[in-house]
Amino acid sequence: MDAIERVTQEENLDPQDWDGMRKLGHRMVDEMMTYLETVRERPIWQPMPDDVQQFFKEPLPQKPQAPESIYEEFLKNVPPYNMGNVHPRFWGWVIGSGTPLGALADFLAATMNPNMGGGNHAGNLMEGQVINWSKEMLGFPKEASGLLVSGGSMANLVGLTVARNAKAKFNIREEGLQKAPHQMVFYSSNETHSSNIKAAELLGLGREALRLLPVNSEFEINLDALEEAIKRDKRSGHYPFCIIGNAGTVNTAATDDLNRLADICEREGLWFHVDGAFGALAALSPQLKKIVSGMERADSIAFDFHKWMYVPYEVGCALVRDKKAHYDAFSYVPTYLAKHERGVAAGPVWFSDYGIQLSRGFRALKVWMSLKEHGIEKYGRLIQQNVDQAHYLASLVRKEKGLELLAPVPLNIVCFRYASNKLSDQALNKLNQEILMRLHEEGIAVPSYTIIDKNYAIRVAITNHRSERSDFDLLVHEVLRLGKALQEKPA
Amino acid sequence: MDAIERVTQEENLDPQDWDGMRKLGHRMVDEMMTYLETVRERPIWQPMPDDVQQFFKEPLPQKPQAPESIYEEFLKNVPPYNMGNVHPRFWGWVIGSGTPLGALADFLAATMNPNMGGGNHAGNLMEGQVINWSKEMLGFPKEASGLLVSGGSMANLVGLTVARNAKAKFNIREEGLQKAPHQMVFYSSNETHSSNIKAAELLGLGREALRLLPVNSEFEINLDALEEAIKRDKRSGHYPFCIIGNAGTVNTAATDDLNRLADICEREGLWFHVDGAFGALAALSPQLKKIVSGMERADSIAFDFHKWMYVPYEVGCALVRDKKAHYDAFSYVPTYLAKHERGVAAGPVWFSDYGIQLSRGFRALKVWMSLKEHGIEKYGRLIQQNVDQAHYLASLVRKEKGLELLAPVPLNIVCFRYASNKLSDQALNKLNQEILMRLHEEGIAVPSYTIIDKNYAIRVAITNHRSERSDFDLLVHEVLRLGKALQEKPA
Repeated sequence: MDAIERVTQEENLDPQDWDGMRKLGHRMVDEMMTYLETVRERPIWQPMPDDVQQFFKEPLPQKPQAPESIYEEFLKNVPPYNMGNVHPRFWGWVIGSGTPLGALADFLAATMNPNMGGGNHAGNLMEGQVINWSKEMLGFPKEASGLLVSGGSMANLVGLTVARNAKAKFNIREEGLQKAPHQMVFYSSNETHSSNIKAAELLGLGREALRLLPVNSEFEINLDALEEAIKRDKRSGHYPFCIIGNAGTVNTAATDDLNRLADICEREGLWFHVDGAFGALAALSPQLKKIVSGMERADSIAFDFHKWMYVPYEVGCALVRDKKAHYDAFSYVPTYLAKHERGVAAGPVWFSDYGIQLSRGFRALKVWMSLKEHGIEKYGRLIQQNVDQAHYLASLVRKEKGLELLAPVPLNIVCFRYASNKLSDQALNKLNQEILMRLHEEGIAVPSYTIIDKNYAIRVAITNHRSERSDFDLLVHEVLRLGKALQEKPA
Repeated sequence: MDAIERVTQEENLDPQDWDGMRKLGHRMVDEMMTYLETVRERPIWQPMPDDVQQFFKEPLPQKPQAPESIYEEFLKNVPPYNMGNVHPRFWGWVIGSGTPLGALADFLAATMNPNMGGGNHAGNLMEGQVINWSKEMLGFPKEASGLLVSGGSMANLVGLTVARNAKAKFNIREEGLQKAPHQMVFYSSNETHSSNIKAAELLGLGREALRLLPVNSEFEINLDALEEAIKRDKRSGHYPFCIIGNAGTVNTAATDDLNRLADICEREGLWFHVDGAFGALAALSPQLKKIVSGMERADSIAFDFHKWMYVPYEVGCALVRDKKAHYDAFSYVPTYLAKHERGVAAGPVWFSDYGIQLSRGFRALKVWMSLKEHGIEKYGRLIQQNVDQAHYLASLVRKEKGLELLAPVPLNIVCFRYASNKLSDQALNKLNQEILMRLHEEGIAVPSYTIIDKNYAIRVAITNHRSERSDFDLLVHEVLRLGKALQEKPA
């Protein structure tokens, strides 16, 4: 060894001043808690002024900047122009609201910074425990496997990959679909989430292989049409392999008749995947549980913790009944990943064998801490509370002549519009879109929107633990105010 | 409105005691900073005792538990049994070490909790800025597009999906590969990372469609074999569409001749994807930049911030030269995701149009804060420092008769073994595996392993900003000690 080389001063990325970093951390904790504590007092959203937009055009930093000064820049330019889903009146798309302890858990996770792809360490045991809890929550058998993923899109992709690979009648991992002896086809309703369509494309099955069937007046899959489609495909020499049942569609929160779908899958030998991104969690409420009856018969379930369990982004979950099928769909072990008997390279389960990611963050911690903080019973009550709020909003809409409900309200989503018999549907579409944009711009509330039977709908999806009934009173009041004003003086 | 209903007490998940949560947050900050500040003083890894293993078998929590008590349980059971990659002597697989400010950034991100799938808010502008910085770092054109993803596996999958879809001579999103008029085939070396093989499977191309070509003595793709394979495939009526170039292979950190690969792609009309999970970042060091020369000619690049940029998990990045091809591969806009002109539902770019995830966390913040904290020049120096350390370790190995270098050291990975001419290769394989497990178990260091020409190699991959030269002195000393002891008294 060369003594001269050993005294070379080496750099690292740790703080020069650890106490300074502690102090900054305290300040962040204080100010972020206040940010959440006072969120109701601020507008839910506001547009970014030019100087903020310009700020995000600064070039790649060459030289170091003090952490305090970076944080100051953050404070000035970021939280005031947030998306708004921490606010009690955010009901756009299907987006959760997060919690303070969940956010702190992400700090702990990032400090420990394990790679959850595999290995023998506490994080991996904790993820296994969270998976076990998930199975218990949704009535899935203990022997099932699971994986925490980035969200519903990935959870659906995992479930459908296992479905495709387990049901293929050839060596699909080796040969791919390029030499498929028949067209593999699968089924869902035309209300199915876009992530399933994107999965069909990604997996090389193609969008046309996913047969999107019509729905009934409750926006649930038309079972006769489904049966007919399966027959037709078989007659044509295609190979039906899977049905996707929806537990909570994104437009109207409809849930397919999951028991009937399970029956058909059993009879036809099809894989039964349930996309329950938010709706699966209805299982936590004793009153709502029946809506998702049959889900426990699925071969795979996709759901999110960051939606209706209010855990901060990102964390979803895929559960698969047949652990071996799950492993066989994804496991690929090159020599540099071979397991060892002892040491870090051992470990009861390598989660990278069950999904796409090899490097994986410590998502499990925020779920684990959240479930302990509140207990599963409270989650059941909060989910029920959101559904009660949806029914409350629907009742307000029904009472108002100036408002019109556009779809049934089976769960937590309300689609309605400002209505007037003096205006055509086309004019109402334009007017309601303007109402929605003004609700955002004036910082009042953030519903999103969809099209129901060609009509623009203001869409209120309630996966928000901070919402109170008075928030829906306000929404109704403001929609009527904006609607009347716009009807008198169009934008 | 019903006044009685309005006074109903509704629950939420916010703390009853905000100051208590602040206090707990301070404690977490203090103790986690100390955890990192003192990491060098602790063993890098230790096995979990039975009571810890049992702890993670507790059933689903039904009732609430105080946050302080959850944190106590965490402290007792989790950080002491961490993977160890925050430690200065962690060189297993290719795993980054994280930073204190990066961890705090994840707390800020989770507090704000935006969904980065789309919309008009500061987070999305920041991600756009981080993508722009990434292009600048790697010499990619300003017009290129990009996406922050969970890591290298997903970044490769994004790049290869765009490659597959852009090069397909039929409507692949609609029809899939089930009716492909020819077999689409692509190329890489047999040292390519497993994530590329898994991507071939997932995309429905099949593993056999990815032609894995032999390497030369430097573990770089054999260009003659590649040219011959392309010719052979064309003769057979197959359709070559892509070459994957490796910038830093996982076994030995070899980098293919990227300029020659770019030439072949240009001539043959193939998509050029560079898997630069860690190696791409050699571009940041003036001395190392030449190794990845040609990378800037790629159609797509995959790389990680959580490996050689030391940002906490998870964050990787996919860059795509042709923005339209990127968008066309992934964008799918159902009515409930249609963009609006104003309000939250506007926004310059919806990142969900460029990848698989619709719900997306605020990964951008930790990258943004880290790049500002240190400036890109320092990252270049640290990457160079890790390479210098690899060469230093290689020089130590070369000097020791009891050690043998098993592969060239072109970058930051050293594959070596304890050697003795008294033992067969088979015996040495067993002995070196035992050495590795003892290095872990005794808490000394965490290299991983691979097989080089049938020989078990202790593999040291240096993407660790906390490592110092003395750590490699210690490693060499301990490998010799363990090797001699085991040679005298086998396990």
